[in-house]
Amino acid sequence: MKLTRIRNQSGSITPGVFVSETEILDCSEFGQDWNEAFFENDGINQLSNWLSANQERAPKFNRSDVQLAPAVARPSKIVCVGLNYAAHASESGMDAPSEPVLFFKASSAWSGPNDNVVIPRNSTKTDWEVELAIVIGKKAKYVPEESALEYVAGYGVHNDYSEREWQLERLGQWVKGKSADTFAPFGPFMATKDEISDPNNLDLWLNLNGDKVQSSNTSDFIFNVQQVVSYISQFMTLLPGDVVSTGTPSGVGLGHQPPKYLQAGDVVELGIAGLGAQKQIAVQED
Amino acid sequence: MKLTRIRNQSGSITPGVFVSETEILDCSEFGQDWNEAFFENDGINQLSNWLSANQERAPKFNRSDVQLAPAVARPSKIVCVGLNYAAHASESGMDAPSEPVLFFKASSAWSGPNDNVVIPRNSTKTDWEVELAIVIGKKAKYVPEESALEYVAGYGVHNDYSEREWQLERLGQWVKGKSADTFAPFGPFMATKDEISDPNNLDLWLNLNGDKVQSSNTSDFIFNVQQVVSYISQFMTLLPGDVVSTGTPSGVGLGHQPPKYLQAGDVVELGIAGLGAQKQIAVQED
Repeated sequence: MKLTRIRNQSGSITPGVFVSETEILDCSEFGQDWNEAFFENDGINQLSNWLSANQERAPKFNRSDVQLAPAVARPSKIVCVGLNYAAHASESGMDAPSEPVLFFKASSAWSGPNDNVVIPRNSTKTDWEVELAIVIGKKAKYVPEESALEYVAGYGVHNDYSEREWQLERLGQWVKGKSADTFAPFGPFMATKDEISDPNNLDLWLNLNGDKVQSSNTSDFIFNVQQVVSYISQFMTLLPGDVVSTGTPSGVGLGHQPPKYLQAGDVVELGIAGLGAQKQIAVQED
Repeated sequence: MKLTRIRNQSGSITPGVFVSETEILDCSEFGQDWNEAFFENDGINQLSNWLSANQERAPKFNRSDVQLAPAVARPSKIVCVGLNYAAHASESGMDAPSEPVLFFKASSAWSGPNDNVVIPRNSTKTDWEVELAIVIGKKAKYVPEESALEYVAGYGVHNDYSEREWQLERLGQWVKGKSADTFAPFGPFMATKDEISDPNNLDLWLNLNGDKVQSSNTSDFIFNVQQVVSYISQFMTLLPGDVVSTGTPSGVGLGHQPPKYLQAGDVVELGIAGLGAQKQIAVQED
């Protein structure tokens, strides 16, 4: 299944499922949002059963008629892996890490896949990062690598927007540059894990104003999906619906010579094989 | 008001208010938990009105008969300020910062004020940090210092437990050492801000096995409450119910000569003037 969410004009959310490239089935009647309680209480199996019984008669939207919200509800935490592709570590002027580097993004940055990205006040170095994101399916604590995929609900596209001055030049901890509103677009959908035969072998790309600036494959991960989930779960408990973002390949603005950052009007498009594509337009905050 | 929450044997939560040192009034009938929606929708004023009408007849618990949950619901984020007392920066071997150092704790670490603190597997350096925590009352973005207190709902005691090896010796970002389960006890209550005449002049202390190891006053802050709330809101949006922890004074285990860390059976007691006291017993995770 490809879970998604529609933002209505009132701001309310309609949960849905993509049933084709262009059609979204309205899951309002199922009665749940795609949130922590949904994942915790076997929601994916229940939704699958509900779809089998109701898919024919439930109302459908055309994708082009709706505004997409983040494909799953705001998670309790967004855990990101830093420097997880060797070429990106190198372009960032850092060594490839000997164990995963972790940081958090504020969940208030959670955003729809095609929402504008807002360049914050006083920002001069807003940068892009296409990433494979994992949605956690059940509580994960001290999980061994061998069983780590059992704790995964699915996958989606995440753009880990980063303000490089705030991340790197404002006293250390990266969170300061990772957490502005709209800095975490997720979607257009979360594919349940049965749809992705190997999360560690997916093409991913990002275009800036039509030019390809990032292009890689998750097989270039330094630490793969299983290793990352297992590793994080040694330090903290991952809850159902939590998001783990697996790091970005080379080609970010920071890595350009000279560095290149977003300006109002720039168009950012990004995608991952099997997980769809996003498009953000950069706007300047007043 | 002094908001608190009781954990029932079933695991459910009963919201309450301390009406004396020993008595907690049951606010179940008010019908809300002390969470984001409560703070967002003028809950404190509504609760105050409800109390005026119902305080006499509502049921009451004796504090010693109940188990306290975290005094407010799990926040959407816990933002912590590092090195905000000069003597603590010095004992940590770091310079006093020229602007606030920020990091996050996982909200899954959120814990009751008297719950055991669990020393995680493979931890050898679990450390304590008494801190004044701020609960945010309304959405705060680009807030000037002059009006920052308008965005505060209240204050409480937080123990910012920290695994020093994971924080400082495992590739950089501090979040790894700040986020284990039970590492964020909050309570016994959140005092609404009208109860605290000056949050920047409160005695705070922490005892380890009966010996005072931390003793300071928030007047020793490098960055005070107004500055911290304003500063964070330039980088991210603080949501109602979010928690900002303002940093710890000197006297943590890392600062002892030689360093001293928690062992199973250790008793940690801590408190802040006007905000009550906590007590945790350290246990070793299997």
